[in-house]
Amino acid sequence: MHVRRVISVASFSLVLALSVGGLSYAQSKELAERLGYPANAKLLIIHADDLGLAHSVDQASFAALEQKAVSSASIMVPCPWLSEVAAYAKAHPQADLGLHLTLTSEWKTYRWGPVASRDQVRGLLDPMGYLWPDVPPVVENASAEEVEREIRAQVDEAIRAGIKPTHLDSHMGTLFANPAFFAAYVKVAHEYGVPFFAPRVPNAPKEVLALAEKNGFLLDGFAMAGEQLTPEGWQAFYAGVLRSLKPGVTELIVHLGHDDAELQAIAVDHPAYGSAWRQRDFDVMTSPEFKKALEENHITLIGWNDLKKLL
Amino acid sequence: MHVRRVISVASFSLVLALSVGGLSYAQSKELAERLGYPANAKLLIIHADDLGLAHSVDQASFAALEQKAVSSASIMVPCPWLSEVAAYAKAHPQADLGLHLTLTSEWKTYRWGPVASRDQVRGLLDPMGYLWPDVPPVVENASAEEVEREIRAQVDEAIRAGIKPTHLDSHMGTLFANPAFFAAYVKVAHEYGVPFFAPRVPNAPKEVLALAEKNGFLLDGFAMAGEQLTPEGWQAFYAGVLRSLKPGVTELIVHLGHDDAELQAIAVDHPAYGSAWRQRDFDVMTSPEFKKALEENHITLIGWNDLKKLL
Repeated sequence: MHVRRVISVASFSLVLALSVGGLSYAQSKELAERLGYPANAKLLIIHADDLGLAHSVDQASFAALEQKAVSSASIMVPCPWLSEVAAYAKAHPQADLGLHLTLTSEWKTYRWGPVASRDQVRGLLDPMGYLWPDVPPVVENASAEEVEREIRAQVDEAIRAGIKPTHLDSHMGTLFANPAFFAAYVKVAHEYGVPFFAPRVPNAPKEVLALAEKNGFLLDGFAMAGEQLTPEGWQAFYAGVLRSLKPGVTELIVHLGHDDAELQAIAVDHPAYGSAWRQRDFDVMTSPEFKKALEENHITLIGWNDLKKLL
Repeated sequence: MHVRRVISVASFSLVLALSVGGLSYAQSKELAERLGYPANAKLLIIHADDLGLAHSVDQASFAALEQKAVSSASIMVPCPWLSEVAAYAKAHPQADLGLHLTLTSEWKTYRWGPVASRDQVRGLLDPMGYLWPDVPPVVENASAEEVEREIRAQVDEAIRAGIKPTHLDSHMGTLFANPAFFAAYVKVAHEYGVPFFAPRVPNAPKEVLALAEKNGFLLDGFAMAGEQLTPEGWQAFYAGVLRSLKPGVTELIVHLGHDDAELQAIAVDHPAYGSAWRQRDFDVMTSPEFKKALEENHITLIGWNDLKKLL
C-alpha cells in the first residue's frame, strides 16, 4: 500500500458515513513524482460517486465527465441503472470509471438487492432481501466470506456488462469498517489487478498489507462536503478546498445529480447528499468560476487511469 | 373459473404482448348479477398496471387512484420502487392494489432481477442475472417449478412489505403463455385465497381448471390501447370503449405515468407504452370529458375488491 499518512478507519469511516468533511494530507510527495510530475505538483482527482443509482445521477455525471468537470467516477453495480452506465462506458472507452462496491441500500422508497444469489449472502440482507440500509448491520450480520462473494460478483457483473474498471472503492466505506472486510477487498482487487482506494485499516493482517502494497493507493489527501454544509456555504467550501490544496495527489469526492422528481423521491427525508445537494455539487463543479479557480491555484486534474499506469 | 367466453391464449397474449387492442365480450351477465347489479349493468374496472416500476408511474397512479379516475391497480414486486408503493398501501388501506406478477425485465437502461434467490430460478434469468427481457425466452428456459418459486416469492415479499393484495395478474401475460405456468399461477392464487385475472388457457389440466374455479375470474370483456394507436386517436379510442361497453364486467387496462426525465430514460427507444404514452393515458383518465362519458354511458366503476367479496 502506498501509504503516506495514517488515516484511521474511525475518522475515514466518519467521513464516508457522511458526517464530517474536510481535507487530510500526507507529508510525502512521492506519488506525484512517480506520476512524472514535480514533487510540488498539486494533482487532483475530482471523483463523482454513485453512478447507476438513478438516471438523474447518471445524466449529471455523464455531463460532468464530458465537460471534464470531473476526472473520474465510480459505479454502483447492484443498482437499477447499471445498463445505462454500461452503455455510456462502451460509447466512451476513455472515461475513467471504477466500481463503487456496494453493500448497502440506504434510501427509503427505492431499494436494491445483491448481485450474488441471495442464498449465498444471507448476512448481507435485511428482512426484505435488500442490502442493509446502513453500515453497522452489515458489520454485525455479514461474514467476510459473504462480503468477498458479493464484491467478486459485482466485479464480474460489471465486466460482463462491458465495463473495464479503472479502480475500486467502497460505497459508504463499508469495506473499511472491519479488517476482515478490508482483507476481502484487497484480495479481490489484487486478483483482478485493479487499483483501489485504500485507507489504512487498523489490525489488518500483515499478508493483507503485503497484498495491498501491490495495487492499493492511499492518496495524499481527500476532501468531501460534510453533512453540516449549508447551501450558502457551497461555493466557499469548494473554493477553500482548491485554495488550500497541498502538493501531492488529492481526491475530491462529489455527488452529482439533477434536482428533479426522480432524485427528490429517492432522497426523500434525507437532505444530506440528497437531490438539491447533488444539484449544488453539479452546479459548482461545472461552473466557470470553479474552472478558473483550478487554473489560478495551478491544479492539474488526473484520474485513476493515471494511477493504474503505475501498476 | 367463471368462464363466459373463451379467449384463446394466443389472442390474449397478443393483447398483452402489446400488439393489438380492443374489446372482447362474453354473452352471459352472471357476474354482474352475482355482484348485486341488474343483469344489464355495465360494470368497469379501470386498472392501472405497473406500479413500482418507476417513481413517475407511481405518482401518476396514486393521483389517479386518489381521484377515483382508476378503480384498481397492480404492483410489480421485483421493481426498485416497491417500498414507495408499500408506503402508499399502508397509508391507503382501502386502495384496490393487486400484484402484477412479473417474470420479465423488458427495458434497456433499467433492469431488475428476481425476488427469489438467483440460484433457485436460473431459468428465469438472462446472462446478466436479470429477468429475461421478453416472454419467449422465459417459456424456452424456465421450468414451471422455477415460475412457481418466483411468483410465490413475490407474493410473500408483498405481504412482508405490508401489502394485502386484492388480486393477482400477470405482467406481459407470461403466466398465460403455457399451461404449466398457468397451473403454477392458479395453484399459488388458490393457496393465498386471492382472486386472479384468468384467461382460458388451452390444454390446461382438469385439476388446474377445478382449482381455478374457486377464485379465478374471466371477466366479460377487457380493453387496452394497442401499439398502433396514434396520439391523435387517444381520446376517440377511450370514448369508443365507453360508448360500446356491453353489460357485464369489463376491465380496461391503462398505463399511467408522467412524461418526465426518469420515464423517458426507462422507455428509451420504445414509444409504445412509453413515457408520452403513459402521460396520454393519465391525461385522458383524469379528464372531465372521460368522467362525463362514464356517466353518460351509465357505467359503474368497480374494483377487484368487489370481486373478492364473491369468494
